[in-house]
Amino acid sequence: MRMIDLIHKKREGESLTKEEIDFIIQGYTRDEIPDYQMAAFTMAVFYQGMSRREIADFTNAMVHSGETIDLSAIEGIKVDKHSTGGVGDKVSLIIIPLVAAVGVPVAKMSGRGLGHTGGTIDKLEAIEGFRVELSREEFINHVNNYKMAIAGQTANLAPADKKLYALRDVTATVDSIPLIASSVMSKKIAAGADAIVLDVKVGSGAFMKSLGEAKELAETMVEIGNSLNRKTIAIITDMSQPLGREIGNANEVREAIEVLRGQGAKDLTAVALSIASYMTILGGIYEDFDTAHEELVKVIQSGQAIEKLKQLVSIQGGNPEVIDHPEKLPQAKHHIEVKAWESGFVASIDAESVGTAAMLLGAGRQKKGDTIDHAAGITLYKKIGDEVNPDDTLCVLHTNLENYDQAVQLINKAYTFSNKKPKPKDFILDVIA
Amino acid sequence: MRMIDLIHKKREGESLTKEEIDFIIQGYTRDEIPDYQMAAFTMAVFYQGMSRREIADFTNAMVHSGETIDLSAIEGIKVDKHSTGGVGDKVSLIIIPLVAAVGVPVAKMSGRGLGHTGGTIDKLEAIEGFRVELSREEFINHVNNYKMAIAGQTANLAPADKKLYALRDVTATVDSIPLIASSVMSKKIAAGADAIVLDVKVGSGAFMKSLGEAKELAETMVEIGNSLNRKTIAIITDMSQPLGREIGNANEVREAIEVLRGQGAKDLTAVALSIASYMTILGGIYEDFDTAHEELVKVIQSGQAIEKLKQLVSIQGGNPEVIDHPEKLPQAKHHIEVKAWESGFVASIDAESVGTAAMLLGAGRQKKGDTIDHAAGITLYKKIGDEVNPDDTLCVLHTNLENYDQAVQLINKAYTFSNKKPKPKDFILDVIA
Repeated sequence: MRMIDLIHKKREGESLTKEEIDFIIQGYTRDEIPDYQMAAFTMAVFYQGMSRREIADFTNAMVHSGETIDLSAIEGIKVDKHSTGGVGDKVSLIIIPLVAAVGVPVAKMSGRGLGHTGGTIDKLEAIEGFRVELSREEFINHVNNYKMAIAGQTANLAPADKKLYALRDVTATVDSIPLIASSVMSKKIAAGADAIVLDVKVGSGAFMKSLGEAKELAETMVEIGNSLNRKTIAIITDMSQPLGREIGNANEVREAIEVLRGQGAKDLTAVALSIASYMTILGGIYEDFDTAHEELVKVIQSGQAIEKLKQLVSIQGGNPEVIDHPEKLPQAKHHIEVKAWESGFVASIDAESVGTAAMLLGAGRQKKGDTIDHAAGITLYKKIGDEVNPDDTLCVLHTNLENYDQAVQLINKAYTFSNKKPKPKDFILDVIA
Repeated sequence: MRMIDLIHKKREGESLTKEEIDFIIQGYTRDEIPDYQMAAFTMAVFYQGMSRREIADFTNAMVHSGETIDLSAIEGIKVDKHSTGGVGDKVSLIIIPLVAAVGVPVAKMSGRGLGHTGGTIDKLEAIEGFRVELSREEFINHVNNYKMAIAGQTANLAPADKKLYALRDVTATVDSIPLIASSVMSKKIAAGADAIVLDVKVGSGAFMKSLGEAKELAETMVEIGNSLNRKTIAIITDMSQPLGREIGNANEVREAIEVLRGQGAKDLTAVALSIASYMTILGGIYEDFDTAHEELVKVIQSGQAIEKLKQLVSIQGGNPEVIDHPEKLPQAKHHIEVKAWESGFVASIDAESVGTAAMLLGAGRQKKGDTIDHAAGITLYKKIGDEVNPDDTLCVLHTNLENYDQAVQLINKAYTFSNKKPKPKDFILDVIA
């Protein structure tokens, strides 16, 4: 088998066999296939796509390109959750204690990554003492005893995906649905998930800008999951503005606490409850969405959910007092109010710009190894549809940096206004099962 | 400017500006743009194409990526000739003395290359003593004094093209018309041509399999030439079977001698006379094709053409006696007759297989640095349309190797027969000016 023939075959729109796909992924992982051939292949895939069968084979080949995590020592159906990423997305913080509270084992592994804010483990580290480095034994014991644990990702999962993603990132081949779908699913499957709930975000702040694309990505991932015997459900959620009111690390923990107390922002609460509901269904706890949703609302209202979060913090070495006293979370030195400059209604908030502003305030990493300021972030007081008058506070920026001009400028550009109240958007746009 | 943005732009089907194209070619030549980005870009070009303006800019950028040859010391319009390549193509051997005989300066530079047989300089080296390494001064003096010279290519012409071609060769992006056209034209222009006649071959033995593709390539190259102020004419010629009767090196020289004596195969004579005619027109010697053709026929009939070849051999140090005594050219030890196995007419001769057979007999290089056996080759006694009966000789293989089984097998597969005499094909299929 020669890579050039496989590039040619894909270039001409033909399907590759399982053996051919294995040859590509194995050869690329072992550096036997050079980057330039993989780049040409990837661009051919961008134009020609892959069949659902090819995508499943491609995903499976990436799963087996490195280590896979064996979670069989954990009782029950291990349901993982993945979001395609958005600004203000702190859903993982909420669903870990929420679904664990009703008995679904959550064995969450998470990377640090780059972006507007830290990843889930960075956010949790805003809590004094919280440890995300657990031994394998601790991790499994926690899940068996408490139904939950979260740890930093250390295993060499899907190295082919890691290598391919880095290549796609510099060859303008990131936005290919077969490649995005196989990338996401290979990581989740290698991490040991039995079942997966996907949160596919759509809108200005998301990777998928249109509902059509988001649906196609969701359907593709659900089919991969089904082909590889992982029950998978995808929900498509709105990311036309940041999710919830907080963007950052400590302040996102604070907002997660509010949701778990039943006092959270409507959009965030709706998305988190929806994902949690599907996780409990895939976990075999409830039969249908309405029941799951109702029961999870009760878990919140009864205080069980917030107690479970307190337990998570305790078992991972954090100070549980911050849950009842979120004011003990890190606080920034500067709080800069950004005010409205006209009357009307908020018409749009460009999530991308808000995210970049949060990063510039210190909340996220621009490059690997950058440190994160847990106290930095943004609190949105006005969201789409809210009425504003000049001098109303739109949002407050939190930072320990002295120079925040660029962030303020970004925020000023992020908000647009209109005379008419915009039609409210649905939080959950579709469900693909 | 960032390469990733330019890949993205081309990927989306947009046109690149001259500055952007210069950035790509200069960056790639200097190793600042890595192969993997160029590979992705090249695949995007495969799908999205380039506008005629982009192709001209791309060609020009490749021309200026290295040295260019200044032929201004040579009087007259320097007309170069290029063939897209086929089996049995010895047209250059014929046209050099033929057009020089009527006063068009031919300053021919030629590479050795790989393939079924050697290149033009390899073929001429079959003549005892023939020197293809000329100093710049010798070369220019020969052209000024005798209107002709041929030398091996030593200058670093269009290095961007060289590098890009090597990349395309391993990334399944060779067969892209904008890339083929810019590659050919950049080399010809860097080599100092004022005007160019292109021989675009079409058929089973050529790179272009259909007349439509061949026309598109021809038109593209003619437009590049015109955009860059080089008068360019392309003729499209048949390569559904090898051109002429000889494939090899010494035997191709022998066949060129036959044509220059007016005793050559019809197809080869027609193609050579046609190319030579257009060269004399671009060289400003004749006004129209019919006159040019008529005059060149006279040059052959009068013996001037063969005398001019003798002169070429003499001035480059070769033994001119071989022109009158071609039997003095290298002869192989073995001559293997391949016979017909049924009655009927030759329906097809797969040129590609015949070429590969010639290479296996020793006539061509499989890889750089391989030596060529000038005596090796194939003589075709039957061509398409010829009547055959069992035991008629189809062709004779010439080789010094002891093992020629694979070549014989290829030849057996190359010939097909039919009961009906196939319709004769035109030798010249179109002219694009």
